[in-house]
Amino acid sequence: MSDRPQPAWVRRRFTAAHFDFDRLVEEGHEHIGLTRFTGVEVVDCGPGWAIERLAIRPDLMNEMHVMHGGILGYLADDAMGFSVFTLLKPEQNCVTVEYKINYLAPTVGDWLVARAQVVRAGRTIIVSECELFAQTKGEDKAVAFSVGTFMVIANPARPAG
Amino acid sequence: MSDRPQPAWVRRRFTAAHFDFDRLVEEGHEHIGLTRFTGVEVVDCGPGWAIERLAIRPDLMNEMHVMHGGILGYLADDAMGFSVFTLLKPEQNCVTVEYKINYLAPTVGDWLVARAQVVRAGRTIIVSECELFAQTKGEDKAVAFSVGTFMVIANPARPAG
Amino acid sequence: MSDRPQPAWVRRRFTAAHFDFDRLVEEGHEHIGLTRFTGVEVVDCGPGWAIERLAIRPDLMNEMHVMHGGILGYLADDAMGFSVFTLLKPEQNCVTVEYKINYLAPTVGDWLVARAQVVRAGRTIIVSECELFAQTKGEDKAVAFSVGTFMVIANPARPAG
Amino acid sequence: MSDRPQPAWVRRRFTAAHFDFDRLVEEGHEHIGLTRFTGVEVVDCGPGWAIERLAIRPDLMNEMHVMHGGILGYLADDAMGFSVFTLLKPEQNCVTVEYKINYLAPTVGDWLVARAQVVRAGRTIIVSECELFAQTKGEDKAVAFSVGTFMVIANPARPAG
Repeated sequence: MSDRPQPAWVRRRFTAAHFDFDRLVEEGHEHIGLTRFTGVEVVDCGPGWAIERLAIRPDLMNEMHVMHGGILGYLADDAMGFSVFTLLKPEQNCVTVEYKINYLAPTVGDWLVARAQVVRAGRTIIVSECELFAQTKGEDKAVAFSVGTFMVIANPARPAG
Repeated sequence: MSDRPQPAWVRRRFTAAHFDFDRLVEEGHEHIGLTRFTGVEVVDCGPGWAIERLAIRPDLMNEMHVMHGGILGYLADDAMGFSVFTLLKPEQNCVTVEYKINYLAPTVGDWLVARAQVVRAGRTIIVSECELFAQTKGEDKAVAFSVGTFMVIANPARPAG
Repeated sequence: MSDRPQPAWVRRRFTAAHFDFDRLVEEGHEHIGLTRFTGVEVVDCGPGWAIERLAIRPDLMNEMHVMHGGILGYLADDAMGFSVFTLLKPEQNCVTVEYKINYLAPTVGDWLVARAQVVRAGRTIIVSECELFAQTKGEDKAVAFSVGTFMVIANPARPAG
Repeated sequence: MSDRPQPAWVRRRFTAAHFDFDRLVEEGHEHIGLTRFTGVEVVDCGPGWAIERLAIRPDLMNEMHVMHGGILGYLADDAMGFSVFTLLKPEQNCVTVEYKINYLAPTVGDWLVARAQVVRAGRTIIVSECELFAQTKGEDKAVAFSVGTFMVIANPARPAG
């Protein structure tokens, strides 16, 4: 499945010897408490990239009635981790070393969408970047930009953050 | 109340002409959905610093059975925003411009505690730093370190992120 | 001149009411000491983007005989500041609030090239990103990735960092 | 020598089985081109911390007649790398994975001083933080704050960035 069409926003091309779309999406839907609460879902992924989203709703907003920045950071970390995960071997996993997020505009609309893509895949360290959009009636508005550093570990569980 | 004793971990001294401990803590407890879900509470604060915490529980963990990094980023952002908020005038508010978080160790224990303190308070830009600890039977273990940039805005609502 | 062809690597389109290519490139060549020492030059720019480069030479290297990371951070900051500067009015300037840089690979080759582009241009805060490449016989290898936050100020001098 | 008095600004205590003050300071003075140009010197160090400084001079300034931000980033990276280096075994070295720097105030005065200290020393990843001060007649003014991530590698050369 590593010949899936690469979206136009993906800037670099990676190959993944062990890419298994169905397994990845299934693992991306694992029902941990936070995923259930926030409603995060994996929309699509390919070697080195991933799209995740969650529905914007009042109880994820802050006192200014826009999405809480903490949720954006959480989604960016999650989507970048997933973009890294697409490049790993089945016996590998990754942990977030650090990430940075810049907020660009208030998040209002229907969906919060994260498009993450690997910048550089080293043997131990993998760097990913992520753009977050507020989507309203199919139209995207950039709301945040994030960069994260991930470390490959020998562990069979799913990526974390 | 700006003569509250400053904890030993606070590295710089700020004065806040408008510091009102009771108002701040009350506003820090505002029941927005995310605060309710995560159980974040303001433990203490003074001019330029704040302590927040939340109880570590299984449904905030990731697949590796440690606290999800997204929750740590959320708490760091929230606590740093609060440390900034203590220095503002009643007619001011702040928004998060960006933050960075480094994960140091897996978060396991009873409480996740965030100690945030302002690094520099400019007229428009305020920088804060935050150490996060996993607390077990009163003993602290550092689990993350964060730095954030906040912008002062003219708005009466509570800080955001 | 704001209708200059936009390179393929520029991901977002900005307009600059006051874009003056010749003035910008001339100001980018101002001979401050550090620019003279490092040999930084502006290669090209357009509304919201800029390319800068410097020749890789032994006395900018570290003890491992690759370019010193400090030089990469310096060039990233400089190029991002310049990409921001292309969008400002003549009576405005900008200062670096903060930046982050990830090192991806050792820098060896003929030229160190920085391609910076604005991510979001707010009224006060402008965010830019930058890819750095080591160029050898015209071939590019990614060596660093940076994101920076800039604040617009009312000052006639050239951008700084 | 690992029982050197720890300065008051050092927030965490580390032990270094292989700490050798004279060797470290000597290596910190290695005459690479950039060090010679900027005049960086190691002032003091202990297990997990280091102080470096350079003389503020006109040819390191930007067009606004304050120290160029690139020099601050360079010094922060260098000093943090050195603080990490104090904890390594003789057969180890470190490389900068990434760093972030916040500028707090314009740098004017006699000396630019960097005080770096390790936040967390893992087996592979070591995190350090750094405060930069402009020193004038012995008085310090905070001008920047930085956090960096370093990776331990098996290599006998001195740290880099």
